[in-house]
Amino acid sequence: MPDARQYVTINGPFVMQHGTITDPTVAYETWGELNAARDNAILVFTGLSPSAHAASSHADPSAGWWEDVIGPHKPIDTTRYFVICINSLGSCFGSTGPASIDPTTGDLYRLDFPVLSLEDIATAGDAVVEALAIDELHTVVGASMGGMTALAYAMLFPSRTRGLVTISAGARSLPFSIALRSLQRELIRSDPVWDAGQYNIDVSPALGMRLARKLGMITYRSAKEWTARFGRERTTDAGDPNDRFGIDFEVESYLEAHANKFIGTFDANCYLYLSRAMDLFDVADYGGTVAEGLKLIDVERAMVIGVETDILFPLSQQQEIADGLTDRVGEFRFHGLESIQGHDSFLVDMDRFRPVIAGFF
Amino acid sequence: MPDARQYVTINGPFVMQHGTITDPTVAYETWGELNAARDNAILVFTGLSPSAHAASSHADPSAGWWEDVIGPHKPIDTTRYFVICINSLGSCFGSTGPASIDPTTGDLYRLDFPVLSLEDIATAGDAVVEALAIDELHTVVGASMGGMTALAYAMLFPSRTRGLVTISAGARSLPFSIALRSLQRELIRSDPVWDAGQYNIDVSPALGMRLARKLGMITYRSAKEWTARFGRERTTDAGDPNDRFGIDFEVESYLEAHANKFIGTFDANCYLYLSRAMDLFDVADYGGTVAEGLKLIDVERAMVIGVETDILFPLSQQQEIADGLTDRVGEFRFHGLESIQGHDSFLVDMDRFRPVIAGFF
Repeated sequence: MPDARQYVTINGPFVMQHGTITDPTVAYETWGELNAARDNAILVFTGLSPSAHAASSHADPSAGWWEDVIGPHKPIDTTRYFVICINSLGSCFGSTGPASIDPTTGDLYRLDFPVLSLEDIATAGDAVVEALAIDELHTVVGASMGGMTALAYAMLFPSRTRGLVTISAGARSLPFSIALRSLQRELIRSDPVWDAGQYNIDVSPALGMRLARKLGMITYRSAKEWTARFGRERTTDAGDPNDRFGIDFEVESYLEAHANKFIGTFDANCYLYLSRAMDLFDVADYGGTVAEGLKLIDVERAMVIGVETDILFPLSQQQEIADGLTDRVGEFRFHGLESIQGHDSFLVDMDRFRPVIAGFF
Repeated sequence: MPDARQYVTINGPFVMQHGTITDPTVAYETWGELNAARDNAILVFTGLSPSAHAASSHADPSAGWWEDVIGPHKPIDTTRYFVICINSLGSCFGSTGPASIDPTTGDLYRLDFPVLSLEDIATAGDAVVEALAIDELHTVVGASMGGMTALAYAMLFPSRTRGLVTISAGARSLPFSIALRSLQRELIRSDPVWDAGQYNIDVSPALGMRLARKLGMITYRSAKEWTARFGRERTTDAGDPNDRFGIDFEVESYLEAHANKFIGTFDANCYLYLSRAMDLFDVADYGGTVAEGLKLIDVERAMVIGVETDILFPLSQQQEIADGLTDRVGEFRFHGLESIQGHDSFLVDMDRFRPVIAGFF
């Protein structure tokens, strides 16, 4: 199987916000070439579930999760920029997380992995920047959890960050999205197969993950999109006709198909840790208010993008980030896009996102 | 225990849209007096989970679910009107449903109860109107599922319906709310205790019901309300400190408390049937479009109320009902209220709801 991942191991103790682990590894992929001045690097943090495979490459020609955005002559143009995408600490696609072996015990971390924060993910990502001998990043970019991590990075490493792009992110998690993620975690934890995190690592708590994914899918899109896309269409591949509560509407079939595709691709404990890390994030932890916290950021250029139909990180949260940056950043752009695909728009509404991202880069 | 319920039994076969049951009972409560002309009756249909106990009375002085709206000198003034509230067919508070005994077998219906429709609930409610020898209702009123049922009633019994009030309802279920209800049902059905509907009727599938209720709670309110109400407050009654994914935020504690209160109060199979009945409802089944279907309604006065922050039945769906009625009804009122409590506003935002309802009555 083609694999473009590269790895940095942080030797010795890695101090996290809520604990310490030993010799963690951070997986990443890169595209394009670092120039002689070493000043054309773009660092990309991901949402909760993607790997570092943001785009195809010679080493791994399969399409990446942001294939339409990153590549030669694409909005993030890899003929001009050196792009690095980080697999988050705590995830399960090469970076160390709850599904990794703790070298001090020889056992899987599971729930002995320390409580994870987005700041930990940002700091682990910086180990890659350091290993690549990059002093200053052209821009740090992220969407959703990745946008929050990009904010954390810009706050923790201001001297390394010349530019910042956050997309459909937030300076903090608010109770509506906390409630949804809390319930997703409870769905996973309620699956008997989860077994308090001690499940056989090759046997996913499939039921809990499927239910959590369905809830995620519902919140990642918008009612408006689904009305246009599914309406009240009935599915043609109905299951057992004797099942009074089986799949009937097209939207139910869509959720089932996507949830089943997710099963087995993501470790349940990693999901729990990353989900909780989003809840815990709050820029106001630095200085008492979001505005104070954002003052730690010292970039020359920034862009904040949000989407009108996003119910997880509504436009008001993008505005909150923008308000804290606009007067302090030389070149600042704010875009509230009319995409109807909700939180997921940055993955699918390329007609709106591509020009805006290309405009910045 | 005080009990104000009265009962009508429909003798013989009761033909539903998808099957037939025998001798069903409909429970209801009443307030006020029917006048000599028998023309001051208001019929109230409920949301999915309430009983017919909409308000206190001598027979049952406990507060009802719409205590602030129905009563002497309240917006629905029981010194002037005779108010009837129906426990929906398929529910479990006195009316026949999946948790009732099928007289033809002597066993509980469980999943042998026919697929339920809101039209069936409306028709069963009409048996009460008939038993009370009321030819014409002053107004049929309902919120949420009750508003959809009120629409169904006004379509099926136009000559009986002089007035109509729908609140936070819809002329049809759209895919976003269908997806949410479908997932709620799956949460219940995934509880091993549910046992394909064959659970011991005294032992609720508590886990599934708790999870479904939490999802409901999240969608009944609004992100805006919760941001103001909970912010990022941490709970003081945190559980096990060793539980990495236990309750931490105030909003999580709130959901847990409300969900636990719900357990054991509602039969799981009844919940499944009523939830599915909402999905299936579509005014467009009558004539091909919502506008055509609404033409069956022949009322003199109507009022449609919606709430800006309702994500289950957004204001656009209230507008759809209004569009179908406004030119055909002598006195028509539409109110899009700015309540921040989302779908549940009609239960809690009395400052906005009471004057609007009082204005109509």
